[in-house]
Amino acid sequence: MKEGRMTDQTPSPDEILSLASQLADVAAEQTLKWFRAPALLTHNKWSEGFDPVTEADKAAEAAMRALLKAQRPEDSVIGEEAQNTVGTSGLSWVLDPIDGTRGYVSGTPTWGTLIALNDGHEPIFGMIDQPYTGERFVGGFGMAFMERHGVKTPLATRRKRHLSEATIFTTFPEVGSPLEAEAFHAVAGQCQLTRYGMDCYAYALLAAGQIDLVIEAGLQAYDIQAPMALVQAAGGVVSDWRGGNPMNGGRCICAATPELHAAALEILREVPLG
Amino acid sequence: MKEGRMTDQTPSPDEILSLASQLADVAAEQTLKWFRAPALLTHNKWSEGFDPVTEADKAAEAAMRALLKAQRPEDSVIGEEAQNTVGTSGLSWVLDPIDGTRGYVSGTPTWGTLIALNDGHEPIFGMIDQPYTGERFVGGFGMAFMERHGVKTPLATRRKRHLSEATIFTTFPEVGSPLEAEAFHAVAGQCQLTRYGMDCYAYALLAAGQIDLVIEAGLQAYDIQAPMALVQAAGGVVSDWRGGNPMNGGRCICAATPELHAAALEILREVPLG
Repeated sequence: MKEGRMTDQTPSPDEILSLASQLADVAAEQTLKWFRAPALLTHNKWSEGFDPVTEADKAAEAAMRALLKAQRPEDSVIGEEAQNTVGTSGLSWVLDPIDGTRGYVSGTPTWGTLIALNDGHEPIFGMIDQPYTGERFVGGFGMAFMERHGVKTPLATRRKRHLSEATIFTTFPEVGSPLEAEAFHAVAGQCQLTRYGMDCYAYALLAAGQIDLVIEAGLQAYDIQAPMALVQAAGGVVSDWRGGNPMNGGRCICAATPELHAAALEILREVPLG
Repeated sequence: MKEGRMTDQTPSPDEILSLASQLADVAAEQTLKWFRAPALLTHNKWSEGFDPVTEADKAAEAAMRALLKAQRPEDSVIGEEAQNTVGTSGLSWVLDPIDGTRGYVSGTPTWGTLIALNDGHEPIFGMIDQPYTGERFVGGFGMAFMERHGVKTPLATRRKRHLSEATIFTTFPEVGSPLEAEAFHAVAGQCQLTRYGMDCYAYALLAAGQIDLVIEAGLQAYDIQAPMALVQAAGGVVSDWRGGNPMNGGRCICAATPELHAAALEILREVPLG
């Protein structure tokens, strides 16, 4: 499949970045339409079972799929909301229109639109877009940057090596199963600071050199592929809780440095997860 | 003291809003200078014990105090970083340059600068300013709005009445003491959704009709006075965990509606806090 990337069908990094940016733009039109709007809905609308986040999620994915169908019909599309589309190029777009729907419905500006490109082996490009703050985090093809208000800032993970000086994030203190929670908190207990509630935004902060570890469980492929490519492009280390490839979802650890990754993995391994 | 507000010394609501906006602006200059910058610091600088958040916190409060000294020397100033200044007008400015320092050092855009005006009885005006997202939440004198990019949006708490449909926020799952945590989680267990990690931004979301309850403990007067005035101006109900006035800090509950406030208070009262 790697060879498939070398054909005439294969878009250049610039084309991929341009298309991903267009995808994020069409998704943002839909997600921003309903972000913080639920409070304005009439009671009648709610009684009819109208759910703004589902509406925004589906509309954003449909808009991205329509764009991909027009511009890259030969690529596969894997998304949260609709059935997978199988293409011929060996390339797959992996989409999550709103990662962090619970944050979205609460009005927090830390959900994101996730866009990854996978070459059949691994995600080779990832974007986390937060359209309310106007931040677009991009990683792949040797690039790692955040673009905001037209200004690009390079991204790089910071170089802390000891858990005792690390900041660790996960979205919910419950993490997943009781054993998964136990494993997470065994690591967090060694860290300097533990914070919750940021969804995909935590991976962006890790790529931006602001925090050191993100450990989560219960992920889907579309939750992790964009963050994975972004964090790796920024110099971080990504794996599942046993050191394997997390691209198909489940349990994931992202670390700013190899030392932190190894130290956290050693603790995670002590908990038998079955 | 109330009568003191009627003298010639008393600024008009417009003057208060204008001055508070200037205070937020001078604070933002200092807080944004170091927000997300720590990653750029040399190792040498860190070794010398330089702490960017302390630097930003102190510089922002000093800038606000200098402005108040020039424009309202007759008012008292209560802040986090420096000694209280006692004035003659009966009015006190209550300042927290960076509420959510742990969020600030982690790069999350959900810390805020808190500015309240207290008339000796209660906070009569409150502002939560988030300069990175460009959001300024304002409440008092019959006004409640969020200003962003020059656009003002009215704020109003939403009208949910049952805990089973409520979204509740607190900053840390540990909340405070073990008994305080028990009391919080007794309420949260009845709610539809519990989220963490937003610091003062949670109060802004409550005022904006996005969430329904914020319950915290271990607060200082400067942590709660601006959120309190804002939430009340937006139609919410604010008290300590026994129904008293929380303006001096400690335990606080902010609710979107009287019904939610009463229901949560009933559960909080069941836990003997000593």
